[in-house]
Amino acid sequence: MSQRRLHVVGLGCGDPAQLTGQAVAALRGAAYALAPRKDRGAGDDPLLAVRRALLAEVAPGLEVVEVTDPERDRSARVAGDAAAYRGAVADWHAARTAAYERVLLERPGDVALLVWGDPAFYDSTLRIVDAVLARGAVTAEVVVVPGISSLQLLAAAHRIVLHEVGQPITVTTGRRLREAVDGGADNVLVMLNASLDLAGLEDWTIWWAANLSAPSERLVAGRVGDVLGDVLAARAAAKAEAGWVMDAYLLRAPGA
Amino acid sequence: MSQRRLHVVGLGCGDPAQLTGQAVAALRGAAYALAPRKDRGAGDDPLLAVRRALLAEVAPGLEVVEVTDPERDRSARVAGDAAAYRGAVADWHAARTAAYERVLLERPGDVALLVWGDPAFYDSTLRIVDAVLARGAVTAEVVVVPGISSLQLLAAAHRIVLHEVGQPITVTTGRRLREAVDGGADNVLVMLNASLDLAGLEDWTIWWAANLSAPSERLVAGRVGDVLGDVLAARAAAKAEAGWVMDAYLLRAPGA
Repeated sequence: MSQRRLHVVGLGCGDPAQLTGQAVAALRGAAYALAPRKDRGAGDDPLLAVRRALLAEVAPGLEVVEVTDPERDRSARVAGDAAAYRGAVADWHAARTAAYERVLLERPGDVALLVWGDPAFYDSTLRIVDAVLARGAVTAEVVVVPGISSLQLLAAAHRIVLHEVGQPITVTTGRRLREAVDGGADNVLVMLNASLDLAGLEDWTIWWAANLSAPSERLVAGRVGDVLGDVLAARAAAKAEAGWVMDAYLLRAPGA
Repeated sequence: MSQRRLHVVGLGCGDPAQLTGQAVAALRGAAYALAPRKDRGAGDDPLLAVRRALLAEVAPGLEVVEVTDPERDRSARVAGDAAAYRGAVADWHAARTAAYERVLLERPGDVALLVWGDPAFYDSTLRIVDAVLARGAVTAEVVVVPGISSLQLLAAAHRIVLHEVGQPITVTTGRRLREAVDGGADNVLVMLNASLDLAGLEDWTIWWAANLSAPSERLVAGRVGDVLGDVLAARAAAKAEAGWVMDAYLLRAPGA
């Protein structure tokens, strides 16, 4: 018998046309798909619904097994207790690993692990898979299937190259934007924003997008000081329309 | 008549399975494809041959019109004359723009402009297209079609996330690697290497790859001080096998 395969599949951002042939083949050849599910009170995870619609189109009949993300204890973080916070994160990772291991042991066959965008950027699936395999009960070959990331769709939607000729790009999260700017970065691509705080960056240029390639997609570009109101309004409108919002943006310093 | 479309198509790195459905549709729907051609003495441009093989598989019959990259005057750079160097680069860009404009005026229809990897990273096609349209003789809608970039294939081949949890990535070129390191970057993704100079970075970890997704692909990972010899040997072997070498790597500082 050939070795079991776990395909970690980059799904892009919801548009079936942005899937690669390799991703489609991995989805169609899988015994089932695995997807994390964030429970948010009574409501369904809205991104899970987007993934289901995508799969219904490209791999009809593929069963999606949901792994509910364990509750994360955020009390230590709020209390500012660093050791307790690290402990809570470790507990959370262990619970996620155990949940994935349970499904993979109960259900044999090749699996497609569904990743939003590309598994290379700000996604924990590969780390969970490594942790599961390190425990030794599940044996499999891991195949990573790249997907079109939101940073590429951002560039495509605005029809830009992500940097001036030959210049660097700093890719970071909304939480660490200030660190990048303080460290001298003048061309910063920001993913994962809980909120948007651009105070002091009024003279920078922003190319911003939300819900890329979804019907609720919004684009804004211009000098931060001029367009920040438009960005905030567009962000709220995308969220109101879709029930979720994921945004990304490129920020470039004046004269960069 | 509907407006003419110029599709700037990310082709990935040569593997037809890495094309998105959107890219395949743009290629199949184009009247012809446009590709830059770097003349290197008597030899053919080896990457042009890779592109032709890819197109023969996914869009058979699509004609590829080659635009020969004009000769670039490098004498000013060698002489260290900055103003003359800037002038030579401007002349070169103007010559490229004129060459693209000539083809687009002579030959009507939707066009697929072929880009290695993804148009968002270290590629000049979008800048040339913008310059052509700014001249006013050619009118068209520009559609950017993202492709899987070598940095994503690097991560997929090594089965890694490109950063530690929540940390930033600096994307830069081989020429500017030192600037990034001196500026405090501790997780650096390097594309476009004329050569490889990692002196002083012996304790960093490298994930290196050449000719990703080609038969001549090579991968090396480890502590720079331990694997640098392997990297250099693999680089030479890839070049000997394929006639060309394109490498990319992730460098992470100890303790990053």
